Amino acid sequence: MEPLQITSTQNPRIKNLAVLQQKASERRRQGLFIVEGMREIGHCTAAGFSIKELYYCQEMGELPHSLHSSDEIICVSKNVYEKIAYRGSTEGLIAVVKEKQTSLADLKLQDSPLIVVLESVEKPGNIGAILRSADAAGVDAVIVCDPLTDLYNPNIIRSSIGACFTKQFVACTTDECIAFLKQKDIQILTAQLQDSFAYYDTDMRRATAIVMGTEDKGLTDKWRQAADAHIRIPMLGQLDSLNVSVSAAILMYEAVRQRKR
Amino acid sequence: MEPLQITSTQNPRIKNLAVLQQKASERRRQGLFIVEGMREIGHCTAAGFSIKELYYCQEMGELPHSLHSSDEIICVSKNVYEKIAYRGSTEGLIAVVKEKQTSLADLKLQDSPLIVVLESVEKPGNIGAILRSADAAGVDAVIVCDPLTDLYNPNIIRSSIGACFTKQFVACTTDECIAFLKQKDIQILTAQLQDSFAYYDTDMRRATAIVMGTEDKGLTDKWRQAADAHIRIPMLGQLDSLNVSVSAAILMYEAVRQRKR
Repeated sequence: MEPLQITSTQNPRIKNLAVLQQKASERRRQGLFIVEGMREIGHCTAAGFSIKELYYCQEMGELPHSLHSSDEIICVSKNVYEKIAYRGSTEGLIAVVKEKQTSLADLKLQDSPLIVVLESVEKPGNIGAILRSADAAGVDAVIVCDPLTDLYNPNIIRSSIGACFTKQFVACTTDECIAFLKQKDIQILTAQLQDSFAYYDTDMRRATAIVMGTEDKGLTDKWRQAADAHIRIPMLGQLDSLNVSVSAAILMYEAVRQRKR
Repeated sequence: MEPLQITSTQNPRIKNLAVLQQKASERRRQGLFIVEGMREIGHCTAAGFSIKELYYCQEMGELPHSLHSSDEIICVSKNVYEKIAYRGSTEGLIAVVKEKQTSLADLKLQDSPLIVVLESVEKPGNIGAILRSADAAGVDAVIVCDPLTDLYNPNIIRSSIGACFTKQFVACTTDECIAFLKQKDIQILTAQLQDSFAYYDTDMRRATAIVMGTEDKGLTDKWRQAADAHIRIPMLGQLDSLNVSVSAAILMYEAVRQRKR
């Protein structure tokens, strides 16, 4: 069967793509989100997500063989592709993907897991950057507490370069997360400036959760009180400021360093 | 004397501001660049730069007393300010600043300095992010070799949140930089995947330059051959990829850790 062809940017499906890219509420309501680019779509399907619709632009490249089995394949003209593409440099491929609900109970953890917890981090770009670093550092899971964005925000997917699929990535409330970590006997290290030890003086070889808050407000009292230790990255400059994704990477890699010795 | 008032976006000065924001060639030709925001302008003047023109929008806040001595103060209406502001959240202040030519010979280095060298890093946002981390880690200087951008690109200033002024920050060629480091007996550690040691197995307590290349191509052979050691950040995930500014921060903070012990 020949794939459906769309050449008008006014087509209702094309309009719905734009809505799914822009509105978290619609992503939630429809249970769908958008993934762009061959590499990201590959990580997404490898993680067990299923593609509902695959849009591709023949003028920009061939459809990879691995994607021929997608539920529905739709061929779009270049003008349509340019309207729906969020990034410039993708390979003419955009997928509409079905959400999977994963929860804390679904997490598969190794012995002495390393977990990163983000409380109310605002910028999707920072969450994506942390996922990318978490992939590199071999972190077991990234948990977002009381999220201000949905997990499938296009900026998270893009800035994680697909690590939102290669890593276990769940959302829950702060209360649920603290209860989970306590029950699994995972030590809680909260990143904060007050009453804290330098991060490199803290043992991260046992089961560990590194918990980060927002750049401006930090963590809520719930986390401070639940913590086994408060850890600090020394600030030796004039600005007293590190990007939250940079801070997270420094802490994750300290765990890598300690665990490799 | 009452400050000059500008209410038209067609004013030639306003048009020149836009040109200075957008064109490196014009910044070079005029020897001027743009700094936006109270905090950034404060760091800039504290670093000895002089303000040629200060634009401020009265409707958005008072002119800080410390800036009353600026060469020329120009009051702009809100519509003009909105046209010239690169960021949304600044405090109604934009400065046109005179460039300073600084070179390797001007660098003031402590005993056992820590230097970060960036070769041809493409994205101004990454260079700015590295400057911000370099401030936090107390790095002595950031050197950009064979730069693909000028040092006063608005994205560098913005993403460094002013660290391009708090840190010594110079541009030169790769050959000049290698000669400088060799002459000062500063060990050269190049970040690269091939033939390399894990970064935490490398002694960074002596005078050290951490040298980073681009995310895709890495460093040129000149640097690999000049290196005292090649260092690697272990990649434990599926994507084999870290952002260059995150990598730089992990390496700088390893030096902080080793030096504090």
